[in-house]
Amino acid sequence: MSLEAVLARIDETLPEATDRLFELLRIPSISTDPVYRGHCARAAEWLADELRGLGFDAATRPTPGHPMVVGQSGGQGRHLLFYGHYDVQPVDPLDLWHRDPFDPAIEETPAGRVIRGRGASDDKGQLMTFVEACRAWKHVHGALPGPLTIFFEGEEESGSPSLVPFMQAHREELSAEIALICDTGLFGDGQPAITTMLRGLLGEEITITGPGKDLHSGSYGGAAMNPIRVLTKIIASLHDAEGRITVPGFYDGVTELPEAVRAQWQALAFDHVKFLGDVGLSVPAGEHDRTPLEMLWSRPTCEVNGIWGGYTGAGFKTVLPSKAHAKISFRLVPGQDPQVLRDAFRAHVRTMVPFDCEVAFHEHGTGPASVMDIADPAFEAARAALGTEWGRPAAYIGCGGSIPIAGYFKEVLGMDAMLIGFGKDDDQIHSPNEKYDMTSFHKGIRSWARILDALA
Amino acid sequence: MSLEAVLARIDETLPEATDRLFELLRIPSISTDPVYRGHCARAAEWLADELRGLGFDAATRPTPGHPMVVGQSGGQGRHLLFYGHYDVQPVDPLDLWHRDPFDPAIEETPAGRVIRGRGASDDKGQLMTFVEACRAWKHVHGALPGPLTIFFEGEEESGSPSLVPFMQAHREELSAEIALICDTGLFGDGQPAITTMLRGLLGEEITITGPGKDLHSGSYGGAAMNPIRVLTKIIASLHDAEGRITVPGFYDGVTELPEAVRAQWQALAFDHVKFLGDVGLSVPAGEHDRTPLEMLWSRPTCEVNGIWGGYTGAGFKTVLPSKAHAKISFRLVPGQDPQVLRDAFRAHVRTMVPFDCEVAFHEHGTGPASVMDIADPAFEAARAALGTEWGRPAAYIGCGGSIPIAGYFKEVLGMDAMLIGFGKDDDQIHSPNEKYDMTSFHKGIRSWARILDALA
Repeated sequence: MSLEAVLARIDETLPEATDRLFELLRIPSISTDPVYRGHCARAAEWLADELRGLGFDAATRPTPGHPMVVGQSGGQGRHLLFYGHYDVQPVDPLDLWHRDPFDPAIEETPAGRVIRGRGASDDKGQLMTFVEACRAWKHVHGALPGPLTIFFEGEEESGSPSLVPFMQAHREELSAEIALICDTGLFGDGQPAITTMLRGLLGEEITITGPGKDLHSGSYGGAAMNPIRVLTKIIASLHDAEGRITVPGFYDGVTELPEAVRAQWQALAFDHVKFLGDVGLSVPAGEHDRTPLEMLWSRPTCEVNGIWGGYTGAGFKTVLPSKAHAKISFRLVPGQDPQVLRDAFRAHVRTMVPFDCEVAFHEHGTGPASVMDIADPAFEAARAALGTEWGRPAAYIGCGGSIPIAGYFKEVLGMDAMLIGFGKDDDQIHSPNEKYDMTSFHKGIRSWARILDALA
Repeated sequence: MSLEAVLARIDETLPEATDRLFELLRIPSISTDPVYRGHCARAAEWLADELRGLGFDAATRPTPGHPMVVGQSGGQGRHLLFYGHYDVQPVDPLDLWHRDPFDPAIEETPAGRVIRGRGASDDKGQLMTFVEACRAWKHVHGALPGPLTIFFEGEEESGSPSLVPFMQAHREELSAEIALICDTGLFGDGQPAITTMLRGLLGEEITITGPGKDLHSGSYGGAAMNPIRVLTKIIASLHDAEGRITVPGFYDGVTELPEAVRAQWQALAFDHVKFLGDVGLSVPAGEHDRTPLEMLWSRPTCEVNGIWGGYTGAGFKTVLPSKAHAKISFRLVPGQDPQVLRDAFRAHVRTMVPFDCEVAFHEHGTGPASVMDIADPAFEAARAALGTEWGRPAAYIGCGGSIPIAGYFKEVLGMDAMLIGFGKDDDQIHSPNEKYDMTSFHKGIRSWARILDALA
């Protein structure tokens, strides 16, 4: 019963595993902000060191952006690849954190013990569940579960610009039979789940220029076009009264959910009243004729992630600004081509810009949507292992977020991916006071031990 | 011909007058920023000294904010009050100035000699035209033109919080037959003008709250309402396709321009193509059935002076923010009640906020619009004096900006105001590289000598 020994070892060494995670959490590896570049490199080195300590042939690998970490172990059997990302989101607004986001701690909460800190859930805590499962495995078996490739990136939170070129350049080294990705969550209050549908992403930044310089709104107001007026008209035009997105051709190629999947989702009895109520809302914001789970998992969206223009400080300044800006992203579903939609969005915006104003577009990342082929028996094997660990059946679910890596594994490396993670809806990823349940961390490590055993 | 002697004295002593203005310009009296508090006090003291040197009974007068300067001269005849402000706008962005904003200089430009520096036009150069006219008058006549009250404030660029309380507390001392205000401009390329219509101002800040905290747009996008979507719908709703403002009741009480005024304005042959072209625009942005001059002088406006929400830094962050904000101001015309419109605006906004989102309002300043009664013969006397000095007829014009002082003189002290100034559209007031034409300064001083002579 070597699996039992591995699980016992995991239970015994949980404090040490937590300490190691804290070391990683203390490194402020914010990938989107160039100021933190050195910290990203440090996080990559820390991981490569850890992997080498476990017996992987591992190293950081330079890219034009932040480094990748690649580790290999030999051995016989099914070749698996494990993916995670060591970079984290920015921490602003900092004043809403109740502790330093990079000074992690275990906190007792009414819902149990949690690990508090930026990256605790997304994705350092998650990737370390796999590393710690390997550590316990090695201790018991004297060898790593192999053949196994570990692949960590440091640009997931900033659009992964180096990812596809790196995969293309190292196709052979990174190819395996199936990929394991730990960057998703449990379903609802703790049902284990394998995510089989992922939305894609298309990011755009637009700048509207009205007058050539900032003007006094008394001297010019009424006669000179305000770029904020133009920008808000454009943004307001993007959703109709029924919550549908109005960009021409936006829904071309979007298919209806297969009946079987729809039935399974209905069986999940998703409590959207609680889901929205937990964040202070009550009215589903999407297309009026769709269920909330469809809005989140299988329907495309358009969100403004940031808007700014004019005077935004304390007090008042009667400026008529020269420029107004917005960062806009679309979540995409299978059947939508990001490049086609980028062009359609830009064409739509251009029709709304007055003759004497200008619009400039800045391209942010894209990633296609993904649907996994659950006919591969590895899916059922992993689902059984998860069910045993968590004491309730694992579900195949969708995910509103974009984990483009899954699409790239298929596209560039020709392999399917199993997305298994232990995050919870209230983890506050991308928000102040991010946390990861201690249960997620502990049972997450145990889950991987069971899955490695099942797939071995 | 003592007027000729006064004018000759003005011409002879222009270099000394310029030096004195430079002394005042060197004092960085930025009223909105507490760091410059001492400099504001110093500018007030400098002016009180000047006035005392001319024979005024003058002193600085404390307020809860920056001091006022009040000077009185005795004598017989029509009692005039002259108003100006010694505070200036902040200088940011400093890197766009081609010299230190508080190290003034005379520069030769293709359009003639200019005085460059913060406050050169708004309003130190303008107020000094009157002081220097008094100086020359005193030299020739041996006495000041009296009775004359001088009233300078130091909070005009920061909302004049102390002004009305000070007027109310010193009603008797500040009451005169008519007020002269030097804080406006020439018309077009140099036609003298008396401003008889001023727009009022109403400032509001609104904050829309959607979810109770920032969310991940992947996890929640589609189902959770984005407050930027709500805010942009509201702002986009404020103007219809014809450029009219849609707040219910907004135009109630707004009257049509009298035919005589409309005819006079048409005679001004305002070059709106150049006016807009100078700032890179070509299409008048206001109500489609109004002339550009009406849009600027006699029609109310709605401008967004600032908007912000979500992630506005470098790169991209897929946040679905909790809050979105805008600073919105309305320029008002006679017949519009700021308080009634504030309520109407808030009611309109509330109808557009979804059931599960919230709106909060923060009140910024208001000032009523003003129309002067040009039947007072002082207006025609001043207009004739200006026409003689500038060699072309003076015009009665409107002003898009808000100079609430004119309304307060009427409201609190019961006197009309004549707004006469020598600024030009290209003076870059409130912007980098502010300047005042040497011609404005020189002929401005001469103009006041003529007006004092005409009104004496």
